[in-house]
Amino acid sequence: MKPVILTGDRPTGPLHLGHYIGSLKNRVELQETHKQYLIIADAQAMTDNFKNPQMIRENIVEVALDYLAVGIDPAKSTIFVQSMIPELFEATFYFLNLVTVARLERNPTVKTEIAQKDFERNLPVGFLTYPVSQAADILCFKADVVPVGDDQNPMIEQTNEIAQRFNHLYNTELFKKVKALGGTQGRLPGIDGKAKMSKSLGNSISLAEPFDQLKKKVQKMYTDPNHLHIEDPGQVEGNVVFTFLDAFDPNKEEVEKLKDHYRRGGLGDGTVKQRLTQVLEEMISPIRKRREEFAKDKGEVLEICRKGSEQAREVVAQTVAEMKKIMGVGSI
Amino acid sequence: MKPVILTGDRPTGPLHLGHYIGSLKNRVELQETHKQYLIIADAQAMTDNFKNPQMIRENIVEVALDYLAVGIDPAKSTIFVQSMIPELFEATFYFLNLVTVARLERNPTVKTEIAQKDFERNLPVGFLTYPVSQAADILCFKADVVPVGDDQNPMIEQTNEIAQRFNHLYNTELFKKVKALGGTQGRLPGIDGKAKMSKSLGNSISLAEPFDQLKKKVQKMYTDPNHLHIEDPGQVEGNVVFTFLDAFDPNKEEVEKLKDHYRRGGLGDGTVKQRLTQVLEEMISPIRKRREEFAKDKGEVLEICRKGSEQAREVVAQTVAEMKKIMGVGSI
Repeated sequence: MKPVILTGDRPTGPLHLGHYIGSLKNRVELQETHKQYLIIADAQAMTDNFKNPQMIRENIVEVALDYLAVGIDPAKSTIFVQSMIPELFEATFYFLNLVTVARLERNPTVKTEIAQKDFERNLPVGFLTYPVSQAADILCFKADVVPVGDDQNPMIEQTNEIAQRFNHLYNTELFKKVKALGGTQGRLPGIDGKAKMSKSLGNSISLAEPFDQLKKKVQKMYTDPNHLHIEDPGQVEGNVVFTFLDAFDPNKEEVEKLKDHYRRGGLGDGTVKQRLTQVLEEMISPIRKRREEFAKDKGEVLEICRKGSEQAREVVAQTVAEMKKIMGVGSI
Repeated sequence: MKPVILTGDRPTGPLHLGHYIGSLKNRVELQETHKQYLIIADAQAMTDNFKNPQMIRENIVEVALDYLAVGIDPAKSTIFVQSMIPELFEATFYFLNLVTVARLERNPTVKTEIAQKDFERNLPVGFLTYPVSQAADILCFKADVVPVGDDQNPMIEQTNEIAQRFNHLYNTELFKKVKALGGTQGRLPGIDGKAKMSKSLGNSISLAEPFDQLKKKVQKMYTDPNHLHIEDPGQVEGNVVFTFLDAFDPNKEEVEKLKDHYRRGGLGDGTVKQRLTQVLEEMISPIRKRREEFAKDKGEVLEICRKGSEQAREVVAQTVAEMKKIMGVGSI
């Protein structure tokens, strides 16, 4: 049997190049070797967007379109919508007993997010507890591996703690240890040079970016602020155009040559940006085309999500039934 | 339509006279005028007994037996088991977003319980959040009234806050304000004179107490420690035997006479205790007999709970479907 992998996204906006390099590209490969479940985590997105459920609802189909556009094959990967699997919340409820408040408050990922979102004073309980819900997602699929970004290892640790505690308390071996699968690529910066590409920061390039927009965005990209004249020596480190060429240009040799030239001086930003535009357009163009095709019949895309959710629900319902039998709840 | 009432118990032990006077007796009357749902809150009991699910499981039928024994009529009241209604956990999940951690930590009932249970350092999240689960129980039945003890008003306040917040955020009138129904009787002390009768404190008289045990327990009851000789004047206040006579003796006039006599002196503890034994036996005897009858076929009792849970689930599923439709989650 193929190992099981669970991964996915919160549907809070269309996916961008950062997602592509950080996860989507891997997923297209992983679906060949793994039983892959892709969660569109709308219920988790509600924990910090509960005031705006409409936005989440609208983005479900957008995320699904992005998946299909990059090459996720519904015959190989199961795309599902979290809120359509009510058994996940049942598992979450029982897992909440196995974690202390102090433990959740120590979670570094959540701590950072709380600070970013300015939640300190009015932290919704759902947001503090979302790692438990995430653990339920992972454990209910009995996932073997979960791909994680650099900042998400604490989530896997939390999941394994819950699994161990459940097994120990209820004298079972239902849950096994989940492995984190580190990304091969680092995080992609925004076009402004900020550490993280993010739609809300306005520094992202979407997977369906129209060509004229793409061109403009590359034009605006942060390079070396001291590289004022073509003949000046330029810096490659922290230069977003080169970071993107490193990430996306298939011709690594040519990129190295360009870097040398840029460092020596004599290579203008315009020339490098032109190359990057071309490289990105070559990558985005087929994705954009496939996305447009799928977008013609959103009903069909939703049907893919519905079928995926049905399949996913069967797996989850089975695990939750096992959990409840072991604890002795849910039937008399 | 009859107003809806939701009430119930955690199945952590057989019910006792304190429960009878505090709630069970009322419920037998309320089922005539209300649509009454009786929750056997096993999932809530898990929040502080998660290490001992077997104890909870075994007590479900005991609590149901107590209900039937005191005169709860399954044709009038719906007895159900909380963990058999998974939709309750779904509602809880979404409600967790509408409450802040600070708000839960301020809940006086929970604060006291946390201190009592010595949970400060290792507070399970499920225990901190149980008021949200309780609110889900109440709101999913669209209860009009909830009977509460003196210390439970904060629970109703929390429920109404969640209802209002949901209605406001999602621009609906789905949930109405729930009213607390105060008890007519105060809390019954333990036979040792401690403020609360409780099985775990070993100071309780169960609803099925065998006669010889009952007699012994009344013998041991705390009276007036300064009432050493029959001829001494005695104190009635804080004297458990008189507190019980006040609560259970149908002949109030006679009780007043006895009190006067006791205060004057010349009335021995033994005489009063004999009367109380008789009063309690008259009350307990038919309950004990009915309980024994029902206990002969526990399968039938469980069947009553199963049917009740099915009925209750229909109501809850309907409300949760409405909630999800309003929020726009759970279907695409």
